[in-house]
Amino acid sequence: MTDGRARGPFRFEVLAVDGATSARRGRMETSRGVVQTPAFMPVGTQATVKTLLPQEVRATGAQIILANTYHLMLRPGLETLVAAGGLHRFMGWDGPILTDSGGFQIFSLASNARVREHGVAFRSHIDGSRRELTPETAVGLQLGWGSDIVMALDHLVGLPAEFASVRDATERTHRWLTRCVDAFADAGGEQRAALFGICQGGMDPDLRRESAAAISAAAVAGSAIGGLSVGEPKPVMAEMLEIVAEILPVDKPRYLMGVGSPEDLWMGVARGVDLFDCVLPTRLARNAALFTPEGRVNIKQRRFAELHAPLDPDCDCDTCTRFSAAYLHHLFRAGEVLGLRLASVHNLRFLANQIEVIRRAIEQSSFVSAQASFLDCYRPVVRADDA
Amino acid sequence: MTDGRARGPFRFEVLAVDGATSARRGRMETSRGVVQTPAFMPVGTQATVKTLLPQEVRATGAQIILANTYHLMLRPGLETLVAAGGLHRFMGWDGPILTDSGGFQIFSLASNARVREHGVAFRSHIDGSRRELTPETAVGLQLGWGSDIVMALDHLVGLPAEFASVRDATERTHRWLTRCVDAFADAGGEQRAALFGICQGGMDPDLRRESAAAISAAAVAGSAIGGLSVGEPKPVMAEMLEIVAEILPVDKPRYLMGVGSPEDLWMGVARGVDLFDCVLPTRLARNAALFTPEGRVNIKQRRFAELHAPLDPDCDCDTCTRFSAAYLHHLFRAGEVLGLRLASVHNLRFLANQIEVIRRAIEQSSFVSAQASFLDCYRPVVRADDA
Repeated sequence: MTDGRARGPFRFEVLAVDGATSARRGRMETSRGVVQTPAFMPVGTQATVKTLLPQEVRATGAQIILANTYHLMLRPGLETLVAAGGLHRFMGWDGPILTDSGGFQIFSLASNARVREHGVAFRSHIDGSRRELTPETAVGLQLGWGSDIVMALDHLVGLPAEFASVRDATERTHRWLTRCVDAFADAGGEQRAALFGICQGGMDPDLRRESAAAISAAAVAGSAIGGLSVGEPKPVMAEMLEIVAEILPVDKPRYLMGVGSPEDLWMGVARGVDLFDCVLPTRLARNAALFTPEGRVNIKQRRFAELHAPLDPDCDCDTCTRFSAAYLHHLFRAGEVLGLRLASVHNLRFLANQIEVIRRAIEQSSFVSAQASFLDCYRPVVRADDA
Repeated sequence: MTDGRARGPFRFEVLAVDGATSARRGRMETSRGVVQTPAFMPVGTQATVKTLLPQEVRATGAQIILANTYHLMLRPGLETLVAAGGLHRFMGWDGPILTDSGGFQIFSLASNARVREHGVAFRSHIDGSRRELTPETAVGLQLGWGSDIVMALDHLVGLPAEFASVRDATERTHRWLTRCVDAFADAGGEQRAALFGICQGGMDPDLRRESAAAISAAAVAGSAIGGLSVGEPKPVMAEMLEIVAEILPVDKPRYLMGVGSPEDLWMGVARGVDLFDCVLPTRLARNAALFTPEGRVNIKQRRFAELHAPLDPDCDCDTCTRFSAAYLHHLFRAGEVLGLRLASVHNLRFLANQIEVIRRAIEQSSFVSAQASFLDCYRPVVRADDA
């Protein structure tokens, strides 16, 4: 099915396209509210966007958040989330939530992950208990706790990888997608959520094309692009994106998984991406790295000790409007938790502001010049060692 | 001077006294607002009440906070605080701030503390640098960054202590108080702040009486009781309090330093105490211990995993009104910072609620029965090992 018909509560509509690039300005409707795209989704791994309250996340401009199935299935577990009245109620976030399928984190966090055709067996990183995730249980968990966007289970292999193992994993991902689509339909998922498929294929152009075609042909509401930003050079990521963007249906949202540096938002949007998620803004914040229009800075540096003014005078976040860089510097030097909060608020607001600038630029057909203005000023980190 | 005349911006007035105990209901006016007493002061050691924003501290019902001179003098230091426009502006708290003198923490945190008549020499616990605190510099620091209530430098000795060393320290405290009074007057301190003296004397009744008399005779606006809650049995603390309460001027506020468990608030108020401070509520919170009307509970216990209701259904704090015990349990099990915040809010609100109950009980001459109701239900922790 590639008819792109909206199903159940989920709708997606492209409102404007940039003339010079593939950038799109869209509107995604979910069971729990509208998301203007392009959008950045803050990550709430364990049913909390680290250090912040839901209303604080909302105040940064976030419209939708992401939570991780791998973490939630282990702790607190589906049973607790159902008894709580669902994930939204448990954590106090009433906007849309997208959950990943758990696949990525099984391969990065769990021990003894063993992939069979049936699914993945692994041991919990918390207590070593034996667990299993299959296409059917991945969908069941996400629907069970009430995710608004459900991701299909995928199989990805880390870099470096041999062609044969990438091909195997990619083809398995496609077979698993079929099972996810069936499980989603059997559970009546479309009445309350949307299912997205995930394109894999490593860094191989042909496998990427094949995978993009496979998820384009599936009865899913959105297309995710997985297996990128895993250590490959940035031009390779851009190339893979361009390859799949040509194939993916234009009337479904495109979600680039795990990507979210300021410069990558521009890069991705230019290639037709609508949705992003990344732990980067909150993880950097906890490591004292804050975004500014000139690039990241480490707030613990001596030069901020006597800066009795906002870190970024043009920033409208709740941190910059109320506290000085000197105070942030002090909190980080003193190891105070409040510093992690204030930095997280700032970094999330910084990305939301970038996305708002991007949305306006597409509407005004000035994306290319807006991107140039951004890049003139912003100095990206070349080695993403703290990312 | 024991005339009790209000000076400068500082006023204290006893509004009501309990018939059956020494409990008093008062009103303390500072340069930055009114404090209804009895009052509990949350501790903001390093220019932040740990994990919380100023408005969150305020929302728990706090009217005044405490900050620590020892910490602030080392980091960020007086110069930075002055350049920031003062401590209040630096940390974003516009209500009154009481700062301790630094003495207590020099003896507990610094290394190589050496007391001479001139002052205390010590090494910073942060970088090992040589520092000194004298009665004059203690007052100068506190006035310099804009404290509303300035504590005189005291000398206390830990338990167990020989009589001679307690006597020496107590007498030195009195001589230092005279120097603090002079330094405060020379700096025109009364125009913007109030100076409190500190009663020492260890667990010796005669030394306590002597010390209470000495600070009663000094030109200070308030009387602090130091050197208690340092490991002595609770009945000994109560006895010492009773001894000094008989001597301290009734028209000045009485501040019991470092005491703040729910049961000790009642105990202290019954003996005429107006002000309390303690790290207990916020420290316990960070260790997963939450106050309930029945006593402290550890939120990580299994029994809370499926409690999909507020921890304390009668609590009006921002945590209990929005999140379940099960969510708090999850956050602590998962090691999430948000748990520390939510628990801190709850514990501070719990103490503020206790104090509000206490104030009403004094106004209604029902303190004794209110205390009995509290103690009927609340089971104190006998070994304060996590306090």
